[in-house]
Amino acid sequence: MISVIILGTGNLAAHLIRAFNKAENVELIQVYGRKVPDNELVSGTISYTSDLKDLQDADVYMLAISDDAIAEFSSKLDLPGKLLVHTSGSIAMHELRSNAGKGVFYPVQTFSKEADVDFKQVPVCIEAEHNEDLTLLKALAGAISDHVFIINSRQRKKLHLAAVFINNFVNQLYKIGFDICKANAIPVEILYPLLKETARKAVISDPVEVQTGPARRNDRKTITGHLELLSGDEEKIYKLLTQSIQNTYGKKL
Amino acid sequence: MISVIILGTGNLAAHLIRAFNKAENVELIQVYGRKVPDNELVSGTISYTSDLKDLQDADVYMLAISDDAIAEFSSKLDLPGKLLVHTSGSIAMHELRSNAGKGVFYPVQTFSKEADVDFKQVPVCIEAEHNEDLTLLKALAGAISDHVFIINSRQRKKLHLAAVFINNFVNQLYKIGFDICKANAIPVEILYPLLKETARKAVISDPVEVQTGPARRNDRKTITGHLELLSGDEEKIYKLLTQSIQNTYGKKL
Repeated sequence: MISVIILGTGNLAAHLIRAFNKAENVELIQVYGRKVPDNELVSGTISYTSDLKDLQDADVYMLAISDDAIAEFSSKLDLPGKLLVHTSGSIAMHELRSNAGKGVFYPVQTFSKEADVDFKQVPVCIEAEHNEDLTLLKALAGAISDHVFIINSRQRKKLHLAAVFINNFVNQLYKIGFDICKANAIPVEILYPLLKETARKAVISDPVEVQTGPARRNDRKTITGHLELLSGDEEKIYKLLTQSIQNTYGKKL
Repeated sequence: MISVIILGTGNLAAHLIRAFNKAENVELIQVYGRKVPDNELVSGTISYTSDLKDLQDADVYMLAISDDAIAEFSSKLDLPGKLLVHTSGSIAMHELRSNAGKGVFYPVQTFSKEADVDFKQVPVCIEAEHNEDLTLLKALAGAISDHVFIINSRQRKKLHLAAVFINNFVNQLYKIGFDICKANAIPVEILYPLLKETARKAVISDPVEVQTGPARRNDRKTITGHLELLSGDEEKIYKLLTQSIQNTYGKKL
């Protein structure tokens, strides 16, 4: 049985609490937060505290707080001989400032309050200073996810960068596409099947193999026509991504 | 019963042939192509020709050929009193040069040889010069799809532009994200659940509402750290899309 204390009460904390509560071989024994969380978060069996002096004993102390707060908050934790992990994609393991053993437990997913996540499908990237801690984290991650990866801090920074491209930036392109529809009285739903199929194809094939469209086939007439419809950031994004596609396939604008 | 002749033998033609063959109330009577298509494409019951003089009589003649070829090829078709439609997102209806009535039948999806498409879920955007032809196209589109939209040429051009953003450009961002992983010995599969969830959220919510990440929360430290890892097109794309997100949410770099 691995005992865990979660420090944090945001979206990720809520999803982790739910996942650990369901897991066999894991005992979630306490949640720490500055303010009392929703009742939903802390069920009757879990003790909650807003005072670091009341932290109980556990194998793993897991920070689910904002990136900016990790370094400073971790310096307040006096946990000799324990394992302290953060859950961030962009913060290096050594930025934890504590006398505890250090580690990382990074679930690669976007979490929102509403959507229920099947944690079994969420990849969890783990890292630890000490080998025995890595073994512990492997068991802990494996208790809630079927996809556990050992990823060091240098790799994790790159992985987080890749995630920005395929999540934040993709979402911004969705927004621009939807805006174009809305401005022209075109129902946005027309784009849904194409949007979903684009994602599906990326996962079952390789994006390089399935690219289509005016940039890929160097269709200057369509590209020129599109650019006439655009201005500002949208025009710049159109030009730059068209150029990027053409560089990928060895053609020039 | 609506009788249809398809002119073209590419991916889209193949998917249309399959869909019309399955549809009640539609009789696919002929396929035209310059070269004999795969046996799969033209089953025993459909006649095939590579000679325009042998075109049979039908209610609708549907061009499924490349955008560039539509104007010139359509000028060769002598079809007085018939309806000629193209299937392109980016070509205006009036670019059809024929003595036939003109129309458009644009399925908004990306088609590949391998993937079987459920045409019932594919949005079909229709347009026609004459009202009675629009009624005919509505019936024809409704026979294979549950999602039929009347979209004029001006709107369709914008719709096609929006599709370039959410399909071609999104796919290029997938490629960049995957490349970053591959270059750092990170299994690309780690990104799959996040990629799929990003698409799912866009469809069930509004992309503006669900945006997260360093640009959204104006996390300069992470943005600077990411830019240090990038160069060339990738760096430019990172900067421009970060700027675009910050403009959306009223923050400045």
